[in-house]
Amino acid sequence: MRIDKDCLGQMEIEDDVLYGIHSMRAVNNFPITNEKVNPVIIESMLEIKLAAAKVNYQAGTLEENKANAIIKACQKLIHDHDYRDFIVPAIQGGAGTSTNMSTNEIVAQLAYRMTNLKIHPNDDVNQSQSTNDTFPTSGKMAMLKLTPKLLEAINNLINQFTQISLKHQKTVKIARTQLQDAIPTTYGRSFQAYASLFKRDYKRIRNAAKSLTKINLGGTAIGNGLNASNYYKNNIAPVLSSISGLQLQPASDLIDATQNCDVFAEFSAALKILAMDLSKVANDLRLLSSGPQAGLNEITLPKRAAGSSIMPGKINPVIPEVVNQVAFEVIGKNLTVSMAAGAGQLELNAFEPIMFRDILTSQKHLTNAINTLVEHCLKDIQINELYNRKNVEKSAITATILTPKLGYEKSTEIVKRALHNNESVKDIVLEEHLLDKSTVEKLFSPEILTNCNNQDSAIQ
Amino acid sequence: MRIDKDCLGQMEIEDDVLYGIHSMRAVNNFPITNEKVNPVIIESMLEIKLAAAKVNYQAGTLEENKANAIIKACQKLIHDHDYRDFIVPAIQGGAGTSTNMSTNEIVAQLAYRMTNLKIHPNDDVNQSQSTNDTFPTSGKMAMLKLTPKLLEAINNLINQFTQISLKHQKTVKIARTQLQDAIPTTYGRSFQAYASLFKRDYKRIRNAAKSLTKINLGGTAIGNGLNASNYYKNNIAPVLSSISGLQLQPASDLIDATQNCDVFAEFSAALKILAMDLSKVANDLRLLSSGPQAGLNEITLPKRAAGSSIMPGKINPVIPEVVNQVAFEVIGKNLTVSMAAGAGQLELNAFEPIMFRDILTSQKHLTNAINTLVEHCLKDIQINELYNRKNVEKSAITATILTPKLGYEKSTEIVKRALHNNESVKDIVLEEHLLDKSTVEKLFSPEILTNCNNQDSAIQ
Amino acid sequence: MRIDKDCLGQMEIEDDVLYGIHSMRAVNNFPITNEKVNPVIIESMLEIKLAAAKVNYQAGTLEENKANAIIKACQKLIHDHDYRDFIVPAIQGGAGTSTNMSTNEIVAQLAYRMTNLKIHPNDDVNQSQSTNDTFPTSGKMAMLKLTPKLLEAINNLINQFTQISLKHQKTVKIARTQLQDAIPTTYGRSFQAYASLFKRDYKRIRNAAKSLTKINLGGTAIGNGLNASNYYKNNIAPVLSSISGLQLQPASDLIDATQNCDVFAEFSAALKILAMDLSKVANDLRLLSSGPQAGLNEITLPKRAAGSSIMPGKINPVIPEVVNQVAFEVIGKNLTVSMAAGAGQLELNAFEPIMFRDILTSQKHLTNAINTLVEHCLKDIQINELYNRKNVEKSAITATILTPKLGYEKSTEIVKRALHNNESVKDIVLEEHLLDKSTVEKLFSPEILTNCNNQDSAIQ
Amino acid sequence: MRIDKDCLGQMEIEDDVLYGIHSMRAVNNFPITNEKVNPVIIESMLEIKLAAAKVNYQAGTLEENKANAIIKACQKLIHDHDYRDFIVPAIQGGAGTSTNMSTNEIVAQLAYRMTNLKIHPNDDVNQSQSTNDTFPTSGKMAMLKLTPKLLEAINNLINQFTQISLKHQKTVKIARTQLQDAIPTTYGRSFQAYASLFKRDYKRIRNAAKSLTKINLGGTAIGNGLNASNYYKNNIAPVLSSISGLQLQPASDLIDATQNCDVFAEFSAALKILAMDLSKVANDLRLLSSGPQAGLNEITLPKRAAGSSIMPGKINPVIPEVVNQVAFEVIGKNLTVSMAAGAGQLELNAFEPIMFRDILTSQKHLTNAINTLVEHCLKDIQINELYNRKNVEKSAITATILTPKLGYEKSTEIVKRALHNNESVKDIVLEEHLLDKSTVEKLFSPEILTNCNNQDSAIQ
Repeated sequence: MRIDKDCLGQMEIEDDVLYGIHSMRAVNNFPITNEKVNPVIIESMLEIKLAAAKVNYQAGTLEENKANAIIKACQKLIHDHDYRDFIVPAIQGGAGTSTNMSTNEIVAQLAYRMTNLKIHPNDDVNQSQSTNDTFPTSGKMAMLKLTPKLLEAINNLINQFTQISLKHQKTVKIARTQLQDAIPTTYGRSFQAYASLFKRDYKRIRNAAKSLTKINLGGTAIGNGLNASNYYKNNIAPVLSSISGLQLQPASDLIDATQNCDVFAEFSAALKILAMDLSKVANDLRLLSSGPQAGLNEITLPKRAAGSSIMPGKINPVIPEVVNQVAFEVIGKNLTVSMAAGAGQLELNAFEPIMFRDILTSQKHLTNAINTLVEHCLKDIQINELYNRKNVEKSAITATILTPKLGYEKSTEIVKRALHNNESVKDIVLEEHLLDKSTVEKLFSPEILTNCNNQDSAIQ
Repeated sequence: MRIDKDCLGQMEIEDDVLYGIHSMRAVNNFPITNEKVNPVIIESMLEIKLAAAKVNYQAGTLEENKANAIIKACQKLIHDHDYRDFIVPAIQGGAGTSTNMSTNEIVAQLAYRMTNLKIHPNDDVNQSQSTNDTFPTSGKMAMLKLTPKLLEAINNLINQFTQISLKHQKTVKIARTQLQDAIPTTYGRSFQAYASLFKRDYKRIRNAAKSLTKINLGGTAIGNGLNASNYYKNNIAPVLSSISGLQLQPASDLIDATQNCDVFAEFSAALKILAMDLSKVANDLRLLSSGPQAGLNEITLPKRAAGSSIMPGKINPVIPEVVNQVAFEVIGKNLTVSMAAGAGQLELNAFEPIMFRDILTSQKHLTNAINTLVEHCLKDIQINELYNRKNVEKSAITATILTPKLGYEKSTEIVKRALHNNESVKDIVLEEHLLDKSTVEKLFSPEILTNCNNQDSAIQ
Repeated sequence: MRIDKDCLGQMEIEDDVLYGIHSMRAVNNFPITNEKVNPVIIESMLEIKLAAAKVNYQAGTLEENKANAIIKACQKLIHDHDYRDFIVPAIQGGAGTSTNMSTNEIVAQLAYRMTNLKIHPNDDVNQSQSTNDTFPTSGKMAMLKLTPKLLEAINNLINQFTQISLKHQKTVKIARTQLQDAIPTTYGRSFQAYASLFKRDYKRIRNAAKSLTKINLGGTAIGNGLNASNYYKNNIAPVLSSISGLQLQPASDLIDATQNCDVFAEFSAALKILAMDLSKVANDLRLLSSGPQAGLNEITLPKRAAGSSIMPGKINPVIPEVVNQVAFEVIGKNLTVSMAAGAGQLELNAFEPIMFRDILTSQKHLTNAINTLVEHCLKDIQINELYNRKNVEKSAITATILTPKLGYEKSTEIVKRALHNNESVKDIVLEEHLLDKSTVEKLFSPEILTNCNNQDSAIQ
Repeated sequence: MRIDKDCLGQMEIEDDVLYGIHSMRAVNNFPITNEKVNPVIIESMLEIKLAAAKVNYQAGTLEENKANAIIKACQKLIHDHDYRDFIVPAIQGGAGTSTNMSTNEIVAQLAYRMTNLKIHPNDDVNQSQSTNDTFPTSGKMAMLKLTPKLLEAINNLINQFTQISLKHQKTVKIARTQLQDAIPTTYGRSFQAYASLFKRDYKRIRNAAKSLTKINLGGTAIGNGLNASNYYKNNIAPVLSSISGLQLQPASDLIDATQNCDVFAEFSAALKILAMDLSKVANDLRLLSSGPQAGLNEITLPKRAAGSSIMPGKINPVIPEVVNQVAFEVIGKNLTVSMAAGAGQLELNAFEPIMFRDILTSQKHLTNAINTLVEHCLKDIQINELYNRKNVEKSAITATILTPKLGYEKSTEIVKRALHNNESVKDIVLEEHLLDKSTVEKLFSPEILTNCNNQDSAIQ
């Protein structure tokens, strides 16, 4: 056992662990959840420590051998992806101080073990830094690191929808507005609309992520940069960018960037809208595949599991259902993030730990939910073409095509009669000699009804 | 024009209005919305002023003629329901001070005009009171006054569902779990379930309203009752109860009752759950009435409006749709109330004006939404009995009844074959000689399939 | 009285009103609120009808005299800003059909009265259109029309913060992180940070508004453009842009644009974040002005109203308080919008009426709240310079400046001793001969402590 | 490896695990999170299986040796608390079917291994049951099991507040309304108010939990009880109560109880209000302990961790801060639960898995947060008595006590002069000969100012 000290007292720490008294305090103070700080945050914190050591050395404020020791320690931890000593819980008070102090003491301890050189967690590892600039930066970096996977998932989703759309360019179906039968459309158009929707989500998330690239390193405690050299302030962002592979830039107003969390609320809002859109599509898939006998039964989702412990042969839309639930989760987390982001006071927002936890979890769950939707549901979706075509053929609402010629009121009469007597609209038009047969056939061809770019003659 | 003064200066006020400088300040300071303070809050404030005048006179702290003048003025305003001088906006800063000061000055002015006696807004009308006890009390009273109409609406809804249930006790239908066909049930059971649901809402709202009967009058500024006599503290609640017809009681801890708004959050949560339940039922109604040709088409809602400006003869479920929207509104307002209720600091919550506005609006909109749902939708709902029966008869999932006899796996096979080959489950069972004909007929009778209290023999 | 008819029956309508049966149905069906459809939506609907008449005439599908009659009627209503006949309630079922049908019948009736020409509400006024393309377009137009006022208000807010910042460039103060004393800063920096924050809000709202410029006119019922000519589809957006002065463009996928409401959720999210940011600043203002005797008392807000009906001379921060409440309201409305936007089904979202109501109200209330914050609070804010300077001078946490020279641990000891014994950090440093006097004086100059660009020598 | 089959196909399963194909399907289908189904749900599912086996045997529908085998297997799993084979993820589609099927197959497999008797997962273990009655019942049971710990934590919190209140019965302090100085009060009253607040939370949660005791076992698939014997329906609740130690009762309307999730929304709302109340108190604690030099500094929280990596000697209110964050989390989860609970369709709500996950997590985190608040913060809270007393003595707002004698306007003048000239209110009153010295001394005694039950003479 070794003895570790802080301003409150001392503690015995087991010899073979890297963490120290600050980590232990966090474990004792915050026994809320077993979940540890997200490894992507830890990795980012280590990259910051590494970059800071480099820049501090170049600035002449950190001795070369100390800088090298810190760099080595950070590199080893990052390379081994070995974060077992980072025992600090994800939900923590102190605005991230526990995460930063823990990183400092682990790096200092490992650096010491690797080089036998005394490294001070604060004076050396944390030099030119503060929790208030490193922690939000690590949060932003973590979100930026999880973003490409999410964007890739969205892209796959778009591609999948596009493929279905192309395959079913001419598969007609009845559209519904307000769940009531509307004029016909095609599955090509329907799935293209989903693709269009998620293209906006893709852009929205990519754009919101851009706000995350503005970091406040160099601001130290409150953004005024006390105890950081001008050299450090000018060089930390490019050096960290190069180490992390992210395009990070210094925020133009570091005081603002230190205290305000609107960019997290903005990014979280983009995730929420993605969740909402996924939920809409999941609802549509569940609705269109309802039945199979007493439902819409227009599409058939791939069977993924036995649907009931009591009803034999029942199959449920389990993949869309899990997507709906992830959407509810992400929407709830957006409220958490919004409340936390709005609860900053004066020069700091103390509630970034819960924001980071909830945004990073949302990114991961959304990525996974989209992937399972693509792989386990959309890839093998079947459209019951014949059934859809019959729906179109019997539909009275196709009489809409008649209004330019017969007027809204006459057409209304025809629809009412068709529905009431279970007659065909075409038959009524012919029987009442309203239009000649060739016109009727032309108007009611699926070509005209659904591909409306060629219908000018139908209107005039 | 007369001159009115406050601690900040003076203002010219038109001669023929009752309000004074405090009302004008509110109008100038809070130009957010044209909406005035809810009349039910104003009425309640006047009842409080009236009760206070009575009790203060009895306590010997207010002269008889002043008390009488105040009482007369309050009675006249309440009786005439003439609140045109209450120009203070509903959304206001100051924790309700504008509403209280405005009431004080209007009552004082009218009392003076009616009796020619100088009445001081603060020393006389507001005697033994503070905004911090009168305003929350008026809010609670207003909510309590709007509650019976809401409960009556819920009760009508329950009765309507029960009537439909009784009428369709034996109308069979296919149940759906996860939107997939499940075993049969009856419309009697379905609508009874809606009645059961809203019985809980009824109780939940009634119980939550009980928390609103604990008022903090007598607490004055922060709940410690400074400047209120013991006589007043002991008598104001019963006197106000008698005047208002509400069952009001003094809160046991006035400091707590003055600063904490959890009871508003609780009441708002009960309204939110009602909204959520209404939304669920509205969704079901829209789903079951979808079509009419390419949807479930199990029920037909009364036609309430032409459904489309372009599609002739289209009819939409407009009443459930407006119910859904009121539900979304109320759920949003619950978030507003929750945030405001959680934002109290130390001895007061300054954000009651928005809480009261949003709760009272929610009560009113919910009442109206339920009433229009009952009157304009449920009363004339039609169930397409034949169509429903056919759904049941063709359903393969009724094979569930076979599992106690044939086992889950054999029954699964039968369902798969039935769905695949579009065969009848009964035919398969007979063809495979799995059960004799009389057993099959008995099992698949709607009686057994849906009225499960008599099915013991089917199981054994 | 005249008789008006629809597909459900007929109604008597008073002779002197322009509205007809569809408006009356809405009033009967949706007795939720007295609030009518927002006039900015109505104006936009009229502009759409006007533009459509123009383009339909050019396309050859509407006769010249009819087109002229419609154009005249629309121009008159817009010019007179006379929307008294638009009696349709803001909260309505039917996906906006009531608003569109009402506009159609009012325009048709007025056109008839002005020209004595029979104009059909659907065949003529609504030609080439559907509720499903006109209503969302009118909602987007209304939001775009309210946006410049909101942006102007934000801009004024930014300017006001910048002015205060410039005036107090050198007014020192103690910063607080997690509400605990931190290193000193200046009011110049603090108010600049607020300006920086709202610059992002400005951009966020301006960018989110761009998504609203993509309209789905030409899509008619479901986006496939049935019954609209190619000429109309190609020309309606530019003509409407020219009439309305807005930069409108056709959406690239009209099916998508007709069914998905993510752009409304996006715009609402931008408003929510603005609300959240306003709330943060309002909280700061309330906190910094707390007291005046037993609070922080660093700033004094202008007195806007007597603060208490019982506590004489009390003044409250009523303007920030009303800002907080508008923020809660807008955050709640964002939830309403999010839920409504996520509740679309298949080819349409039926819940745009509540989205439009809540977004437009949010825009208006935010604009008003910001304006009152600037005019009635920020313009006359006073900073208690002397008091702030004393706070800085006595602060032990300024010892942070020592750490590069003395190390974190020694500095910690000094702070602990200073706080414990109520000693000055400078005195301790001198007494313990840790640094020479001139260094100490330099380090603890406000110049070094707060203007950190010149502190390199302090670090090395 | 053994081969396991379901209606979709077959899979190889490792020999030494108990789970089978249904568990594996869930793992493959729902790769969202590493989090498994909550062990308290699993324990409850096992208790249900155990109770069902007992009752089915008694009903004569399950053979004795099979029943015994099932009972033994369940008992072993529960006793060993060994849930390693329950690999099904917490976030799952299928309305809990995976959890139920997994339990069935694990119990069947273990029963077989223990007795060498073939036990069918569905026909035997799941006999008389369905996912739709077992899963919601297990969720309710789990919530009921976590409730006593939460109530105990709340009770400890109440006791802790009461102890502080009793200890500081006479410690005077300035109250603040709207963060502005108000009349004096005592810490006794302040902490008593917190105790009163949480007494309501205690009752609210206890009452909301009562709704969870109504279970729908016996309802099987949709609540109509198909395939469950009357004996089973009548006896399952009491037998399960006796096994679990919970007071469970059959719901009166099983159809309703199977499809509606309002009771979960209700329970979640009670948790949300607790969260909101905790947040308010955490905010107060952070505010009152702000400083120590440039803040309110009325109380000192126990030091729990070094507060800054850069500012030496800084201590932050880390425990209240973690409480705030748990509150934000729980409020977000309440939105998730509300949306999921409102998303039920027809005979089922498919989204219980996310509801259960979020409610159970909320219960656990709230319990932990309260415990850490009591243990690590409130137990060692210090009140800076002298500092508080000075605040009271210098306060001008104490002039409120004068208004019954001098009137509101004269008192206002006095306060304005006192604040403007930094004079004492008492001195002004004496100097202006407004009251005699003994009256002044009596009025301004802390006894009168704060213990208002004895102030009648002051008023008259």
